[in-house]
Amino acid sequence: MNTDWLAQPCAALNETARVAALARQGQLTKPPGSLGQLEALAVQLAAMQGMERPAVDRIVIVIFAGDHGVAVENVSAFPQAVTGEMVKNFARGGAAISVLANILNARLEVVNLGTVNDPGEWPGVVRAVIAPATANFAESPAMTEIQLATALQAGCAAVLRAKQDGAHLFIGGEMGIANTTSASAIACALLQESPQLLAGPGTGLDSKGVAHKAAVIQRALELHRANLVQPLDVLRHVGGFEIAALAGAYLAAAQNGMAVLVDGFISTVAALTAVRILPDVRNWLLFAHTSAEPGHQRVLTALDAQPMLQIGMRLGEGSGAATAVPLLQLACALHNNMATFAEAQVSGKL
Amino acid sequence: MNTDWLAQPCAALNETARVAALARQGQLTKPPGSLGQLEALAVQLAAMQGMERPAVDRIVIVIFAGDHGVAVENVSAFPQAVTGEMVKNFARGGAAISVLANILNARLEVVNLGTVNDPGEWPGVVRAVIAPATANFAESPAMTEIQLATALQAGCAAVLRAKQDGAHLFIGGEMGIANTTSASAIACALLQESPQLLAGPGTGLDSKGVAHKAAVIQRALELHRANLVQPLDVLRHVGGFEIAALAGAYLAAAQNGMAVLVDGFISTVAALTAVRILPDVRNWLLFAHTSAEPGHQRVLTALDAQPMLQIGMRLGEGSGAATAVPLLQLACALHNNMATFAEAQVSGKL
Repeated sequence: MNTDWLAQPCAALNETARVAALARQGQLTKPPGSLGQLEALAVQLAAMQGMERPAVDRIVIVIFAGDHGVAVENVSAFPQAVTGEMVKNFARGGAAISVLANILNARLEVVNLGTVNDPGEWPGVVRAVIAPATANFAESPAMTEIQLATALQAGCAAVLRAKQDGAHLFIGGEMGIANTTSASAIACALLQESPQLLAGPGTGLDSKGVAHKAAVIQRALELHRANLVQPLDVLRHVGGFEIAALAGAYLAAAQNGMAVLVDGFISTVAALTAVRILPDVRNWLLFAHTSAEPGHQRVLTALDAQPMLQIGMRLGEGSGAATAVPLLQLACALHNNMATFAEAQVSGKL
Repeated sequence: MNTDWLAQPCAALNETARVAALARQGQLTKPPGSLGQLEALAVQLAAMQGMERPAVDRIVIVIFAGDHGVAVENVSAFPQAVTGEMVKNFARGGAAISVLANILNARLEVVNLGTVNDPGEWPGVVRAVIAPATANFAESPAMTEIQLATALQAGCAAVLRAKQDGAHLFIGGEMGIANTTSASAIACALLQESPQLLAGPGTGLDSKGVAHKAAVIQRALELHRANLVQPLDVLRHVGGFEIAALAGAYLAAAQNGMAVLVDGFISTVAALTAVRILPDVRNWLLFAHTSAEPGHQRVLTALDAQPMLQIGMRLGEGSGAATAVPLLQLACALHNNMATFAEAQVSGKL
């Protein structure tokens, strides 16, 4: 398996549609700028979709699940068995993202990249098992080169399926006990920050637990120091299958001209990795929310991202992104359906 | 017309439903607290509706429209004719709130309390005309006592119609050129703040325009100083028909046990006035967004409100509240439909 596809260029935004959408915004019956971020979002979507009047009706949500060897270091508040158990819960409709996908009428797909507690076959779950878990990156590289390439490819494949469906918007999510440890380690390597700044409580560690988690990350960063320069090397040494798959999905989405709505801390770290591989990936990313995980803001700042929501969510699974979807839909509805000053015969600004 | 109804007590929240909803939140398949504000919102709605599993399906949006005598002082970026023109635009479906109400499947009602440029009869527009406009409060009281009582009553009547419809949620909005000047003056009086702090650009004044607006408000505050102690006196001297109607609506909603979603700066000032009249009104208020109008945060702080959205909106018309409705709906869907740890056989926290 090779990674040559990663070098393919990203699709270009449609400047004609962007300019037309911007002009339309200026004519709608409201003071200019009074819809705030909703105006800019509609214009960004217009440029992504090449349509003066964009739409966010067909949504594909893909949850990448994978276990982490580093869980053995006691870095999570929940047991490792939860990763596999939650794959079942996604499939049976009981998880937060299942409920959100249902109400949004979005297609929800789960890609099982390998869990220690294997849930087996389930409807809506794509089996793409690489290994039961990554290796413990506090002691050795998390993945082999082939494992990394396979995970990236799994993300690409999910985007190509979404494209086949005619999706207007791609949301990636993740499930993997201990994956904030992996995401924090990646962020530390890419941003040259300390684990004390970027390690957080994840699913609910206390302050002692967070300090221990930061120490584990510090150990890993020292162990792999020589191999933490290139983003793909960072992913391979301290990443996870699901984080690599998310990065692959974001790269493929940008290459295929599909708008992406990025979820929380882990997804944003995957997005940063993808942008470090191909900077133009950034053009295709919208950001849903600032999570309660304390490292998230630092990673968002590195991406110059202003998310729509800041409501203290910290669940993952793509749940923050799904929660922000109605804002994109309302932005499009306002942009597409409001009357202009001329149409409504309303007087303009003095 | 009398205002005795204002003294009726507010309905009590249902503590049993609140406790049951809180217990349910703790059993759902997610780390406790990981849905952030969405968890607290579901629990608040449960207490308001007296249901362990609340719903926000039937929504009534009422826009109160009225003109302001103080517009003659050149305090707005738009001409006064726009108030009446926008009533037509609401009715014909071209305004932001019309588009939002349509996509939310909400009932939209416009209550015309008096506009200089009278739009006449329109479907969906309730004619409750008090006068073409308030008096210029920089020179005399904005309203007579009877006008104030009539405006408050119009808000109450709108809530009773919404209750008749079985509404789960009441949203009030406003339209009235120069009404940020009135709202800022009310806020200055109730909070003992200076116009320099609470006057803002409204629909788009430049910094010179904002300074002039603050000076007009200062003049009014000095003129009416002896009459700015009781909240009803404040409303009568520097308020507007639509702001008084909003205050009346919030009072009636709390008395009738109906959940309210408060919009932006002007609506929040009306809410503050209502809470100063009957403090328990606060129990029935949810807050949608922090607007770009600079005085809004100060008024929100006075109400100890943490709105859901902060996306730079500053349109009024109830548009920010309507934009936040999907968050309430998703909060309910998650609360009502997620599996518990026991149902999904997912392991709990270590």
